[in-house]
Amino acid sequence: MNLLDTICSISSPQGVGAISVLRVSGCEAFEIAGKLFKESKNYFSQPSHFGNRFDIYENDNLIDQVMVIKFYAPKTYTGEDVVEITCHGSSYIQKKIIELLMKNGCRLAKAGEFSMRAFLNGKFDLPQAEAIVDLIESQSESAHKLAINQIKGNFSNRIKMLRNQFVELAALMELELDFSEENVEFADRKQLYNLIQTLNKEVFQLTESFKLGNVLKTGIPVAIIGKPNVGKSTLLNCLLKDERAIVSHIPGTTRDTIEDNFNINGISFRFIDTAGIRLTDDEIETYGIERTFKAIDKADIILYVIDITETSVEEIEKELLFLENEIDFINKKLIIAANKIDELIELPKHITDWNEYDIAFISAKRNVNVDEIRDLLTQYVDQKKIADTALLTNIRHYDIMMKIEKEIQKIEDGFAQQIPTDLIVIHINTILNYLGEITGEITSDEVLDAVFGRFCIGK
Amino acid sequence: MNLLDTICSISSPQGVGAISVLRVSGCEAFEIAGKLFKESKNYFSQPSHFGNRFDIYENDNLIDQVMVIKFYAPKTYTGEDVVEITCHGSSYIQKKIIELLMKNGCRLAKAGEFSMRAFLNGKFDLPQAEAIVDLIESQSESAHKLAINQIKGNFSNRIKMLRNQFVELAALMELELDFSEENVEFADRKQLYNLIQTLNKEVFQLTESFKLGNVLKTGIPVAIIGKPNVGKSTLLNCLLKDERAIVSHIPGTTRDTIEDNFNINGISFRFIDTAGIRLTDDEIETYGIERTFKAIDKADIILYVIDITETSVEEIEKELLFLENEIDFINKKLIIAANKIDELIELPKHITDWNEYDIAFISAKRNVNVDEIRDLLTQYVDQKKIADTALLTNIRHYDIMMKIEKEIQKIEDGFAQQIPTDLIVIHINTILNYLGEITGEITSDEVLDAVFGRFCIGK
Repeated sequence: MNLLDTICSISSPQGVGAISVLRVSGCEAFEIAGKLFKESKNYFSQPSHFGNRFDIYENDNLIDQVMVIKFYAPKTYTGEDVVEITCHGSSYIQKKIIELLMKNGCRLAKAGEFSMRAFLNGKFDLPQAEAIVDLIESQSESAHKLAINQIKGNFSNRIKMLRNQFVELAALMELELDFSEENVEFADRKQLYNLIQTLNKEVFQLTESFKLGNVLKTGIPVAIIGKPNVGKSTLLNCLLKDERAIVSHIPGTTRDTIEDNFNINGISFRFIDTAGIRLTDDEIETYGIERTFKAIDKADIILYVIDITETSVEEIEKELLFLENEIDFINKKLIIAANKIDELIELPKHITDWNEYDIAFISAKRNVNVDEIRDLLTQYVDQKKIADTALLTNIRHYDIMMKIEKEIQKIEDGFAQQIPTDLIVIHINTILNYLGEITGEITSDEVLDAVFGRFCIGK
Repeated sequence: MNLLDTICSISSPQGVGAISVLRVSGCEAFEIAGKLFKESKNYFSQPSHFGNRFDIYENDNLIDQVMVIKFYAPKTYTGEDVVEITCHGSSYIQKKIIELLMKNGCRLAKAGEFSMRAFLNGKFDLPQAEAIVDLIESQSESAHKLAINQIKGNFSNRIKMLRNQFVELAALMELELDFSEENVEFADRKQLYNLIQTLNKEVFQLTESFKLGNVLKTGIPVAIIGKPNVGKSTLLNCLLKDERAIVSHIPGTTRDTIEDNFNINGISFRFIDTAGIRLTDDEIETYGIERTFKAIDKADIILYVIDITETSVEEIEKELLFLENEIDFINKKLIIAANKIDELIELPKHITDWNEYDIAFISAKRNVNVDEIRDLLTQYVDQKKIADTALLTNIRHYDIMMKIEKEIQKIEDGFAQQIPTDLIVIHINTILNYLGEITGEITSDEVLDAVFGRFCIGK
């Protein structure tokens, strides 16, 4: 990838639309784009950030009438000279203009190459660049908020603060090293140990936040389970407000797991509808059962639907006991949807009194009280956490943080075992390197390729 | 549809991409868009056509950092004040900004509403507006050229010329009317008759040009026929250069017709691959035969593939005779692809001498001489016709022209039967109205809805 090349790309979404935007970036951007216009007098004197109409010709054939904006370096996205061409959104015209740009000396931009140049020109650090991808891919309020926070630098700042603390730790260690050479015992060993423990805790908190950060981006997995014919699909449809899942009264209709993302109160959930579990005298219907267990295993929230007209508390408790024996419930939230209240004259008291679990009394068929399910689902996420803190959302950062966690463990152990300070300092330096990898102060071509390869073409 | 409303829409293609463009148009465009930005000081003094960066906030939450261009009426696409917002191409952000614009007083634009406002503000006439849709949808050089010609006004000019001639005809008629009242015989009745015939011919030429004009837009339909296992799918793949059709050596593999558009030398062809026709002792394999005949019926070009290693001239002629009995060959072009030349040591002389049809000797498997097929296909279109003349490409224009054709026939008949001139003039006025409907000088809400309803959202 030669960074001296002038690159071009379609930057608006792929496909046909009213208009499309093409971008050219690089030291020859103005010159190359200028060759496309028949009357280019005004073009060369055109000020920065100013839009003007030009006709693009190939030989004597008019290709399109376009709007052209020149952005003068360094106040541009990439930090280089940039030309933006807004053309009619025909696939033929888009292809043709790219072809003409390439004929005149441009190279097609690789995925993320505009942003990589921006990064290399110091426009933003690596986590901010990574957040741009998340921002573009964001489909819910919470995912969007996480990305915006990261773009604003909140996450980078947290990493920088962590870095400063490790630098402080290193300084204190070096100090002890100096003292130890003089055979004087180090003044405040306790302070050092406290700092190590604080750092350990912070690193742990950050790695722990990945679980939430990651599902907020991709959707919190929710498994809908329950006996056949209790109204799972009807409830799912009700929550999804469309006809994605097949609804039917024949027990066992839902033959395959259906997954669908849906936003509730600004949070993205990924619903996994499953084939029904039938529990009668501990007999389990075999069909789809394995799939159901897999779905439950993937889920963070289990939405357990019961038919209140047919189920007693004893039965529910028996079924839950069975489930708890089969499935690891740790870190999973259980929500019980007591369905079909429309078929009862009054709610059975022994169930309404029973408040061991989060339970909502609903009628999926008549869309009664389903908002209570929505509320129980969104309660899973501590909204404050999204707004205030910089969560770990990126798998690359997570992988590095896991390595840091191991290193800090070695420091703690080493310190406890009174291993020579200079050996411990090695681990601190390793951690500082890792932190530099996160922010992009230390990068390799492989890391850059991996980060910017995730971008869409034209960004 | 209230034209006083300020409208907004996503104008770039639907979906996720690096960036997306949203448009706002109407008398309150500047004011409404301005409400989205937290720091709008610079915004209100921003000159026309100048791009500036702003932050869009909802309450205190940053939604996106965008580029904003204000276009001051009347030098805008719609002729109204226009604001263009370039945001990150996330579906969430796009939706959110539209939502905010609507909260502040915008209405979502209907399909084509921007262009309709441009039309109503005299930015272009109706055929030019219709050509914008064609331009956006164009996928081949020829379709693009037709649309560009129409946008430049070539077609409108031809209609205007036709209109002038009809006005001249009406004038001559009125003149005769005046004379006839004075019981003086009209001087040059011959001249009048010639003008009517010229006009009749021109109208006929225009309606005739629709056949070509229309297929150039949508792709010239080509049916690939031939016995099973002669290499139809291989040839199709070779022409299409990808693996769209299933290739196999089992006779009758191609069970369903496959259609695919492909550009050859700048012209769009729509290939219809068919189940093979098996002709042995006049026995026809039943499977897929009806579908094949339907495909041939729809086709303008029939690409008849034969296995040259197994077929004699007599057999080909017998099969062609059979086809001609079954299918109406009028206006269809027949191209014979004599395939599998790679399996012969030399071409059989009796076939190479046989030049009753357009024939090419090829090997689809080894991609030998397939360009000759491409040339034969593109010869179907007279390239000059596309470049020089204003073809009739639009079904709405065609429908009106057909009515004009009928009216002019009535004029000619009436003139021959010496029907009173004032009765003939009625038909001329009808024609003038029809021509006004084409150019949009005479419009109704239904016509506007039909024309602009074909546009994509955001144009």
